[in-house]
Amino acid sequence: MKVAFIGLGNMGTPMARRLVKAGHEVTVWNRTRAKAEPLRSEGAKVADSYAEAVSQAEVVVTMLADDAAVQATVQAAGGVIDKLPKGAIHISTSTISVDLSGKLHEEHRRRGHHYIAAPVFGRPEAADAGKLFVAVAGDQAAVERARPILEALGQRVFVVGEKPEMANVVKLSGNFLIASVIESLAEAIALTRKYGIDPHEYIEVLTNTLFAAPVYKTYGGLIAEAKHEQAGFTVRLGLKDIRLALSAAEEVDAPMPVASLVRDRLLAGVGRGFAKHDWSVLGRLAAEDAGVK
Amino acid sequence: MKVAFIGLGNMGTPMARRLVKAGHEVTVWNRTRAKAEPLRSEGAKVADSYAEAVSQAEVVVTMLADDAAVQATVQAAGGVIDKLPKGAIHISTSTISVDLSGKLHEEHRRRGHHYIAAPVFGRPEAADAGKLFVAVAGDQAAVERARPILEALGQRVFVVGEKPEMANVVKLSGNFLIASVIESLAEAIALTRKYGIDPHEYIEVLTNTLFAAPVYKTYGGLIAEAKHEQAGFTVRLGLKDIRLALSAAEEVDAPMPVASLVRDRLLAGVGRGFAKHDWSVLGRLAAEDAGVK
Amino acid sequence: MKVAFIGLGNMGTPMARRLVKAGHEVTVWNRTRAKAEPLRSEGAKVADSYAEAVSQAEVVVTMLADDAAVQATVQAAGGVIDKLPKGAIHISTSTISVDLSGKLHEEHRRRGHHYIAAPVFGRPEAADAGKLFVAVAGDQAAVERARPILEALGQRVFVVGEKPEMANVVKLSGNFLIASVIESLAEAIALTRKYGIDPHEYIEVLTNTLFAAPVYKTYGGLIAEAKHEQAGFTVRLGLKDIRLALSAAEEVDAPMPVASLVRDRLLAGVGRGFAKHDWSVLGRLAAEDAGVK
Amino acid sequence: MKVAFIGLGNMGTPMARRLVKAGHEVTVWNRTRAKAEPLRSEGAKVADSYAEAVSQAEVVVTMLADDAAVQATVQAAGGVIDKLPKGAIHISTSTISVDLSGKLHEEHRRRGHHYIAAPVFGRPEAADAGKLFVAVAGDQAAVERARPILEALGQRVFVVGEKPEMANVVKLSGNFLIASVIESLAEAIALTRKYGIDPHEYIEVLTNTLFAAPVYKTYGGLIAEAKHEQAGFTVRLGLKDIRLALSAAEEVDAPMPVASLVRDRLLAGVGRGFAKHDWSVLGRLAAEDAGVK
Repeated sequence: MKVAFIGLGNMGTPMARRLVKAGHEVTVWNRTRAKAEPLRSEGAKVADSYAEAVSQAEVVVTMLADDAAVQATVQAAGGVIDKLPKGAIHISTSTISVDLSGKLHEEHRRRGHHYIAAPVFGRPEAADAGKLFVAVAGDQAAVERARPILEALGQRVFVVGEKPEMANVVKLSGNFLIASVIESLAEAIALTRKYGIDPHEYIEVLTNTLFAAPVYKTYGGLIAEAKHEQAGFTVRLGLKDIRLALSAAEEVDAPMPVASLVRDRLLAGVGRGFAKHDWSVLGRLAAEDAGVK
Repeated sequence: MKVAFIGLGNMGTPMARRLVKAGHEVTVWNRTRAKAEPLRSEGAKVADSYAEAVSQAEVVVTMLADDAAVQATVQAAGGVIDKLPKGAIHISTSTISVDLSGKLHEEHRRRGHHYIAAPVFGRPEAADAGKLFVAVAGDQAAVERARPILEALGQRVFVVGEKPEMANVVKLSGNFLIASVIESLAEAIALTRKYGIDPHEYIEVLTNTLFAAPVYKTYGGLIAEAKHEQAGFTVRLGLKDIRLALSAAEEVDAPMPVASLVRDRLLAGVGRGFAKHDWSVLGRLAAEDAGVK
Repeated sequence: MKVAFIGLGNMGTPMARRLVKAGHEVTVWNRTRAKAEPLRSEGAKVADSYAEAVSQAEVVVTMLADDAAVQATVQAAGGVIDKLPKGAIHISTSTISVDLSGKLHEEHRRRGHHYIAAPVFGRPEAADAGKLFVAVAGDQAAVERARPILEALGQRVFVVGEKPEMANVVKLSGNFLIASVIESLAEAIALTRKYGIDPHEYIEVLTNTLFAAPVYKTYGGLIAEAKHEQAGFTVRLGLKDIRLALSAAEEVDAPMPVASLVRDRLLAGVGRGFAKHDWSVLGRLAAEDAGVK
Repeated sequence: MKVAFIGLGNMGTPMARRLVKAGHEVTVWNRTRAKAEPLRSEGAKVADSYAEAVSQAEVVVTMLADDAAVQATVQAAGGVIDKLPKGAIHISTSTISVDLSGKLHEEHRRRGHHYIAAPVFGRPEAADAGKLFVAVAGDQAAVERARPILEALGQRVFVVGEKPEMANVVKLSGNFLIASVIESLAEAIALTRKYGIDPHEYIEVLTNTLFAAPVYKTYGGLIAEAKHEQAGFTVRLGLKDIRLALSAAEEVDAPMPVASLVRDRLLAGVGRGFAKHDWSVLGRLAAEDAGVK
């Protein structure tokens, strides 16, 4: 298929590469062009503008940082949405608000496009290995047409509904669940450390029993190490996603007390100087508040 | 080894049976004798009193409901602690307070016994299959002597420290983590249901990706089903354990905001009439508070 | 002074009346004209459009329901902001977001107007009696020029800063403090009722000792009565204001755990069917959660 | 009346003095005798033991630090409870647990004494001026007999019920309400400071409007000053009282989310090094978490 790929950050680059490898005809575009060039040698075309990238596309995949980036590149006058041919499909893999996803849906519909939301779970390494998980929602026919793309990106594709926003809600609630694991582990590790229990051994117990899931291994390890400077996912980004989850919840009048609590802990992380640290730094806040030496 | 087993409830019975099968010479005792009788045909002796049960034992294993039961049977004048021969080992597998565990340690020590705490993770089915996980703490030599017993009970034994209380803290913090998973899932499922997402499919996504752990499968399934009448573990019992975790935390001045939140949700569960329901009923509270139809 | 008054709801009507009585030349406008007519007999002019109302004004006072109403009436093309003469002062008494207040400030400045924010504390009865409290912020000279208007509206005027948003923050944080009193009283009354203490007597103790403030009298009384159907201020409106407070806080990275908690309680109020009840209905939620009969 | 007064700390000394001034025949006792001597010159007898102090008393008033002190001095074998003549009244003004108050009630009853709980609201200055508020509960006849004593101690006496524990619950819930005011103010002041609002002016607005109560003046002032080293009431003591309130609430299955939150903030205060600071130090925690400079 003729695919335009917009947004070549840590996640976008390996995702675009996967599509090239899978044999699709991929044209890439990135605001900072230098990031696009390496993909040329791997078989992608590099467009001078997103208009050029999308004007012939059957499918455009976007992987952009946040609502603002999607608004600027996709939604703005003259943006992707204005340049995309009729009948084409927009696969939005960015983690954006439910509200914006709903609006994109409507605007694409009016222009005769198909819009599906397909946020992904996983880190850059997983993207590179095609091991992402993809939660997708949208019109059934469009999802089926997009499936070869989705399957090239991830190890497994979950169809969660026919309204695109539903995939965004799944993604945001998933990030909320990760954050709640981080905060709960932070508290449990602070407690057990005060009783002299080695955090690595403690995580060993947890992750070999009821909590044998990647999220406990990853974040348990990070909190046990207490090294949060090198951020896989910053406090600031975590805060953004928890806010989006809480906004989605407010929209439908759903209280989420644990989400609120995590939001406030992340804000305290910012206030205490850790905005750019990994969000596992909640472990450090809990340790400080417990007076762990 | 000559083993006395005290406490034949849902967990104790299969655990005692495992010890018989493993070839130990097991004498059992239970307050309600009828519960002990079936084990006779499987090869256990049934004692008339716990005094009789423990007076010849090399090892006594206790699996009792709570602090009060342990105080009445073990700690009281004329209790297990007074009847146990010098040099014997008490393996306490009950989920009790850190405070009581510390006191038992001291009182056994004064009498020339060994005391190790070995709370278990798992439900009755796991106990029956010898698939429990055992977190053990105590004097190293005693733990080594007790190891054949511990290994007969569980699929894996984790030594978490030399002070018995450390195993109790690990157990209580583990139950806190379970409760935090329940409440987080309750919120996430209420949210996604309001967006029309099927809870079973949602749990399918979670448990096949980052949250591929038994605790998410079990409790995600229970909340998706919304059937909480048949309790695997009641709100009242959950509340007891969260209180013990919070008490252990207060003892060392560790704040645990998520634990506090879960405590209050469980109390609201009691107030709203669900004291005897499974603690997954937090899913119902979250749904009601979100106005899920 | 020549004053235009925009927005004649429960609060706006008595406020406009105060200005007429104070001898100002007042032209009123309301979306629903019927609400404006009664003021004619009291000496106000009734304008056919807000354009007419404001085109000759030295001062325009707005008292509108929320951000959306202000955006529609003031900020929109052809709105108040486009019709106001140069040099005139806009006194915004509505409870709106810090963000919108900042934008209005900027847009008025560009047009050569003065913009001051002057949200008020008090209920309609207080407005009628000129007993409101006014928190005002804005350019010092403009505030001084507006003072006769402000003093006609309230019993006391507090200047809280030179940037208009500062008054909005004071107002929103004040509403947060009210909400926190409601929730705290709700919990305290549920507790004491479970011990058999009469809630009216309990409030009598509080409000004659350390808590001798109007907010405890008003909300203590409402919770003790447990009558929340007749809303002085609805759950829905309370929720709006707490959200605005939390947004203002997010803007400056300030965590507010009590505000988050109150937000979630109000959302639970919506979910449990009380969106249109008085926000003192938090007392009922607390009673239900405590199983008070 | 013949009054024994046990416990001459910051509160007890001025309270005992009030009783002397009111013309009662007062015998005082304190563990550290030096604290008792000054009262001799004011007209009190100083007893060598509490046994001597209470053996002739019609009324014994106790003002002790906590449950442990009451258990040691009153409840222990040979304590006040064993030495008090039949028919005498014990007025317990200490802030103790509901549980202990219930037990004292029962033990006094069995010995033919009357027990009433009469915790006081106010600081040492208020005690000195006879300006305390007294919440009293107990058998009606005993309360009437004790009234001259109670009225000598406080400016107003509130009878809250016939079971002594009820007065303890009122006291503990009152301290909870104070703590919730401190935390709410802490958050509101951190927020408004980030918008450049002077905290003293902000408190001025609050305490001249809806929040015109002593508790807002006192704690608003302390937080605005940000001086918490000199403790009127320490974090550690505040924590003790919030725990007692939460225990009283657990006893009757009442969730108290704001109390839980405050508990965790006070614990964080301990962890961050402020155990001996005034509990208004929550203002400092909120400022740090908000990154207030």
